[in-house]
Amino acid sequence: MNTVPGFLAGAVSAGIKKDSGHDDFGLLYSKTPARAAAVFTTNVVKAAPVVLGMGRIRNGLCQAVVVNSGNANACTGQQGTLDAEETAAAVAVELGIDPSLVIPSSTGVIGVPLPMKQIKEAVPALVSSLREDGLEDFARAITTTDGFPKFTSSTTKIGGKTGTVSVVGKGAGMIAPNMATMLSFTLTDIDIAPSALKTALKTVVEESYNKIIVDGDISTNDTALILSNGALGNSPLKESGGDYTQLLELLIELNTEIATMIVRDGEGATKVVKIVVKGAASPTDAEKIARAMGTSLLVKTALYGQDANWGRFVAAAGAAGVEFDPSRVDLYFDEHKVVENGAQVLEESVVGRVFKKPEFTVTLDIKSGSSTAHVLTSDITHDYITLNADYRT
Amino acid sequence: MNTVPGFLAGAVSAGIKKDSGHDDFGLLYSKTPARAAAVFTTNVVKAAPVVLGMGRIRNGLCQAVVVNSGNANACTGQQGTLDAEETAAAVAVELGIDPSLVIPSSTGVIGVPLPMKQIKEAVPALVSSLREDGLEDFARAITTTDGFPKFTSSTTKIGGKTGTVSVVGKGAGMIAPNMATMLSFTLTDIDIAPSALKTALKTVVEESYNKIIVDGDISTNDTALILSNGALGNSPLKESGGDYTQLLELLIELNTEIATMIVRDGEGATKVVKIVVKGAASPTDAEKIARAMGTSLLVKTALYGQDANWGRFVAAAGAAGVEFDPSRVDLYFDEHKVVENGAQVLEESVVGRVFKKPEFTVTLDIKSGSSTAHVLTSDITHDYITLNADYRT
Repeated sequence: MNTVPGFLAGAVSAGIKKDSGHDDFGLLYSKTPARAAAVFTTNVVKAAPVVLGMGRIRNGLCQAVVVNSGNANACTGQQGTLDAEETAAAVAVELGIDPSLVIPSSTGVIGVPLPMKQIKEAVPALVSSLREDGLEDFARAITTTDGFPKFTSSTTKIGGKTGTVSVVGKGAGMIAPNMATMLSFTLTDIDIAPSALKTALKTVVEESYNKIIVDGDISTNDTALILSNGALGNSPLKESGGDYTQLLELLIELNTEIATMIVRDGEGATKVVKIVVKGAASPTDAEKIARAMGTSLLVKTALYGQDANWGRFVAAAGAAGVEFDPSRVDLYFDEHKVVENGAQVLEESVVGRVFKKPEFTVTLDIKSGSSTAHVLTSDITHDYITLNADYRT
Repeated sequence: MNTVPGFLAGAVSAGIKKDSGHDDFGLLYSKTPARAAAVFTTNVVKAAPVVLGMGRIRNGLCQAVVVNSGNANACTGQQGTLDAEETAAAVAVELGIDPSLVIPSSTGVIGVPLPMKQIKEAVPALVSSLREDGLEDFARAITTTDGFPKFTSSTTKIGGKTGTVSVVGKGAGMIAPNMATMLSFTLTDIDIAPSALKTALKTVVEESYNKIIVDGDISTNDTALILSNGALGNSPLKESGGDYTQLLELLIELNTEIATMIVRDGEGATKVVKIVVKGAASPTDAEKIARAMGTSLLVKTALYGQDANWGRFVAAAGAAGVEFDPSRVDLYFDEHKVVENGAQVLEESVVGRVFKKPEFTVTLDIKSGSSTAHVLTSDITHDYITLNADYRT
């Protein structure tokens, strides 16, 4: 994990999680106010810190991000808003910066007020924990049912100088308890102009986190945030030119790594499967079908059962609300064509071994046009049911 | 179970199901051609018998319905169409009626050709099995993973005469293997005019089967069929008047009973929960939210875990794509108000005992208008995963 010049990170335990002793309170800090952009959940029911963050991101600057796990601060009414503001304010005071430059973020159980006494008491220790190489600790502190912390990092040459990008994410695959919360924080010392930063993040989210199946259970807390503090000293990148394109590709690559980790870490998941839809009349059609296939419980249980039951894939596609001619579709499991023009052409036993692999690709060609889309999905397992039925008990 | 004058039913084993010995081949027969209407699956991928049935129902008459379980005859290409036609033709020959008056129906595994040799050999025995009181045998023969056969029956006075309505259904709740196949067959000796029959069935399906959650996994085979043979000798009911209204209510009542049985028999389900959305700006908004809540895996696992985790219900509603003000919503578990204006007002422990009940109601009031909608849903359990991951193995 590369440190990113000008950024510090840290974590402590504030005793918010039931199994206290594990860190559950993390902080990201930029020595100078960083340019910032964010994408938040589309759920109508937004957690208090999301509502606050949506307001604060408008000025395009952020110097600190304070995150707690164990409690989502969602469906907590007016008190929730005050608690989010108070958390950010306490951090701002301790850091000696303007409170409007602090964005709070929360993940965990819904409907329970934040334990503000514990949180406020933990703030001084949290600020003291800030270190240049604190990002992995931060990554661990923001997990909930995650099986492992998620971070990745790389460097790229910008105008002859070496810039760094590090991404920390949080989320457990197919679905997470209390609404699949997905958080991601991208830090870079490369200076990116405000409008380019916004555009880049939007593209990055579309190409990474929006391609993973979280089952329609859209979180109240989903947040993707990018901070660019310009410590590299390059002239701010605009939305054109080779440097921008190169950086955008790197951002997509790193965030796709995090997104893939989230699917792989699906609650109880044993498989990561890429579902590709080809030959659609429009990108929207392709995406609708890919999502319908990746969300279908019958598809997900077939993946878990290692059952190359191709009819479930075709029928799930047919329920997507997109017209196509079922008598023309081809279906592939990895490179093996299983269905040609709507009828089986390969013995399932031949492809049975594909279904034993931890990662493979299912491709459906509906031959109605030239658009393509894909999603990453996981299987649904007994462990998933156990985790989510017993989450709070 | 009342017999319906002028109708016979029967069943035999054709050895289509793996556990042969159980009947898997059923027949409904009207002594005279009956007026008929049907509603079929909206899946783009339609089973061969559905496509055939959609054509045959257009003439508004049907004298026999032949149903096999164990094989859906879906995704079976041109051969599937020929097989469906051949099955109906074999039955027609044995009955001595016009093949266009026979509607075939199938449910079971997708993508496997029908075992036509066995089916054709079983047709004479199937026709010989027809009896006035054969409807329960028929109900058993059309089940797949159903835990119990589903039928109900009642009578009503029409113009001074006693008419009978019997309904046989098939389907296993939340979702059935190979796409949640739901079949229902309503038989009546009451004469109903063709356009009234169509309108009535559409309303009945909307009020019964379309209110149960089958998880977006729309079957390739779903079929609801009504046959009216006029044996009662009444003057055909038109779409108005007290007799029609009374009959429509009875049809809705009986089909809702079958729909509720399907949810109660959900694969592995332990609960049937009614989700009501009130105060929506339009019926469409109300229905979207109710469906989103009833489909959410986090809601379904909370029901299974008997966890009165109200935040999951509110957050699932927020993901429905309908705007509302989360700070104004009220939520009830049965008669207990848990949330008022977006914040918790009752200790969860008080309502915990509601979640231990096998049946209860969750009501969300979004206070944006006066429209209401409801769905019936079940929980998702370990048994569900086992049944669907291991269905064919």
